[in-house]
Amino acid sequence: MTKSRKHIRILTVASSLAALLALLPAARLPAQSSAASSLYADAAEKLRRLGLQDERAYDLLRDLTALGPRLTGSPQAAAAVTLTAQMMQDLELDDVHYETVTVSRWVRGEAESASIVGSSLVGDRPMSVCALGGSVPTSEVGVTAPVVEVKSLQDLAKLGAQVKGKIVFFNRAMDRSQGDVFAAYGVAAEQRVRGAADAAKLGAVAVLIRSLTLRIDDHPHTGAVEYESQAPKIPAAAISTRDAEFLSALVRRDQNVRVRLQLNSRTLAPVTSVNVVGQITGTAIPNEVVLVGGHLDSWDLSPGAHDDGAGCVIALEALRLIKDAGLKPRRTIRAVMFMDEENGGTGGAFYVKDPRRKTERHIFAMESDRGGFLPILVAAGQNGQPRVFEKIRGWESLFLPLGIREFIRGGGAVDIGPLSTQGTVFASVVPDSQRYFDVHHSALDVLAAVHPRELELNAVATALLAYLVSQEGL
Amino acid sequence: MTKSRKHIRILTVASSLAALLALLPAARLPAQSSAASSLYADAAEKLRRLGLQDERAYDLLRDLTALGPRLTGSPQAAAAVTLTAQMMQDLELDDVHYETVTVSRWVRGEAESASIVGSSLVGDRPMSVCALGGSVPTSEVGVTAPVVEVKSLQDLAKLGAQVKGKIVFFNRAMDRSQGDVFAAYGVAAEQRVRGAADAAKLGAVAVLIRSLTLRIDDHPHTGAVEYESQAPKIPAAAISTRDAEFLSALVRRDQNVRVRLQLNSRTLAPVTSVNVVGQITGTAIPNEVVLVGGHLDSWDLSPGAHDDGAGCVIALEALRLIKDAGLKPRRTIRAVMFMDEENGGTGGAFYVKDPRRKTERHIFAMESDRGGFLPILVAAGQNGQPRVFEKIRGWESLFLPLGIREFIRGGGAVDIGPLSTQGTVFASVVPDSQRYFDVHHSALDVLAAVHPRELELNAVATALLAYLVSQEGL
Repeated sequence: MTKSRKHIRILTVASSLAALLALLPAARLPAQSSAASSLYADAAEKLRRLGLQDERAYDLLRDLTALGPRLTGSPQAAAAVTLTAQMMQDLELDDVHYETVTVSRWVRGEAESASIVGSSLVGDRPMSVCALGGSVPTSEVGVTAPVVEVKSLQDLAKLGAQVKGKIVFFNRAMDRSQGDVFAAYGVAAEQRVRGAADAAKLGAVAVLIRSLTLRIDDHPHTGAVEYESQAPKIPAAAISTRDAEFLSALVRRDQNVRVRLQLNSRTLAPVTSVNVVGQITGTAIPNEVVLVGGHLDSWDLSPGAHDDGAGCVIALEALRLIKDAGLKPRRTIRAVMFMDEENGGTGGAFYVKDPRRKTERHIFAMESDRGGFLPILVAAGQNGQPRVFEKIRGWESLFLPLGIREFIRGGGAVDIGPLSTQGTVFASVVPDSQRYFDVHHSALDVLAAVHPRELELNAVATALLAYLVSQEGL
Repeated sequence: MTKSRKHIRILTVASSLAALLALLPAARLPAQSSAASSLYADAAEKLRRLGLQDERAYDLLRDLTALGPRLTGSPQAAAAVTLTAQMMQDLELDDVHYETVTVSRWVRGEAESASIVGSSLVGDRPMSVCALGGSVPTSEVGVTAPVVEVKSLQDLAKLGAQVKGKIVFFNRAMDRSQGDVFAAYGVAAEQRVRGAADAAKLGAVAVLIRSLTLRIDDHPHTGAVEYESQAPKIPAAAISTRDAEFLSALVRRDQNVRVRLQLNSRTLAPVTSVNVVGQITGTAIPNEVVLVGGHLDSWDLSPGAHDDGAGCVIALEALRLIKDAGLKPRRTIRAVMFMDEENGGTGGAFYVKDPRRKTERHIFAMESDRGGFLPILVAAGQNGQPRVFEKIRGWESLFLPLGIREFIRGGGAVDIGPLSTQGTVFASVVPDSQRYFDVHHSALDVLAAVHPRELELNAVATALLAYLVSQEGL
């Protein structure tokens, strides 16, 4: 027995290793490989080795998330400004400075609450709730009203005046069957962004939104609500998906279900805040800028580890890697920690208007704002001519050792959006998003939800792409 | 203020949605798209919608992992046999049956221990340790000996007789700088598999192995050790990476460091076990088989959620999806829960020799044994002619909505390995492995380490590939 077993085991280990080797992608040659790729092979390998040998991006994120939630205008957001500027100093970046941004300040206030009340089936029952960002409060005693469920703005429009005096419950689930989770989010987010404005015009007294996540759990997910200046503003809150399922089942059986909602949110006076800027000044063409950024603000339910602490530390670590690899970019590579993406996008709007921009030309901009998950592709060339995308795609083979197997046309994000008027070409290192909405805008977006190596791979890919553009131009 | 802010916010949401849409891969056309792809577009969409709308693979995994660790020959492995056969019955699979496998039975025994003893610098200090699978025990009082550190089998060979009477400490870390983590594992695993045999021949009294993980933590990772029948067998154990780092630093400063190791493992009498088999019998060519499988046994430190509970439930869920989608495969699609991959590979060896194989022809086999993480590519065509791979790659566009962006040549795994003598073509739906070795063979390989949607994507891709081969042949 021992001998034949032994024989089997040796076969097993050998075939196991053979199977491993058979799976290695090393032999795969991308369709398009440019001369630049071989020129930069050493730089690419240096960046990868330097990045993956440690967990430096994660170390930065640990310090950033330790400050707590970084809601626009909050003391924690101000502390994050100081901390990231210090991180830039520690990395010996050039020209570390603040650029002023005037931001609104919304606060959640005392603990909010929502309850099913007086149901003939379940009596009173509390729900997991959070005000949407920017929501007006209820009165001090809250608002209590019957509930009418809809799945979309179109459903709401059909109901018309029937929603008068009621709480509109938007219960459109994100479409699980989509492989592309961001596409599912894009469709379902409409109810959160526009639901309150549309319902208010029809006389509704408040809106409840099903949280935007694919999980069924007890965590409400916040996010911005948009009011219309010419219409009344009504309180808007999200309930957890589990409560949304429960409430939906209940209203089908009990037409008289009422909900009591109390929100204590307030909008305070505007606050002066800043974008934090630091760079590696280009050796040859310093006024041409390659921007890498993330947004420093987060929602207030968690320290925003993925959204967008990850984006901030990816930018910082990308510049660290370029410096520590001894690379001297020809054009300036700049890291920007934008303020107030979530609650207005003011950081991006102020950045492009800052007087400093007059002597600069931003040729390329990347913002990481999809979390710190495994990077799977590069979207590039947005705003550029097709030949710009083809040029960038010529570098594809350099990204294969990072597990990035494809370049597609695309790119862009909220804070860099205003640069499009200057002809800046956009790109994104795009991470997988299957797990993103599990945590997005909820109390679950904490350091432990980030994997050090997945995060670092983003930083390495960002460093490499920024460096290539800094050397080669577009 | 309100008005201009409002303007900015509308721009923001609009540009955010535009950025989302710009990133969608829908417009991307794969280089090679076959006529078969449009023929099977409906089936592919049905499988995807059906799979992603629930978390059925995860539900199966919850039940399977609830049994506890499924070490080959253990009562829990026997319970897993009964449970997965019942799952097959519940899915109304055809010809659900057991195929006998004779397996060895190794047990860990009473709690093992390892300690640094009598160091002039740190005194006595316990370490986190586990016996390697198949290790012989120490004597009842343990073995205490000086430690000599090596990084490789080559280092060991150079030391030669100097290791006589000592505990050899293999401290080769997995190479973090490799993007391909399995490649790093393949190199470092040599010390675990071969270290004890080589050290024994030189007169060492035991070996300690640095756990094979990229994390620095307190969890020892087990795995098989291979002895040579003509050489003495010495106890072999893994220590956590944190203890490995500590021990390495200590031996550099204190030449007289000794370690006391006590292992209580035993090899019991062989046990009769089984592979569990069920299928959807082909409507046109039932004797041609497309096999999808995983291995039912796990190591004993955890319930093996990723390794390889995931592989088992992926196979089961793939067949469930095909049935529930109303698809009628022309060739037989068979799910096999192999027994004893970890501790000998006997399940795979017995499967190919079973008399039932005489009337069957296995044209295609897939085994999932890299965990239930995000599937990123398909490796296919191993053992086949180049035209076989090209045929399979012609289906690539059908996998894009699942996030699988590339097909490469490859495939294969331990249990299906013996089928290669029959000309069976191998393939694998290959998941990302950045997080795999965090949990692999350790107490961390639990249900909570698996993401329901990542797991389900594997099942959908497996169902689709199996169905395509069942219809089109190779």
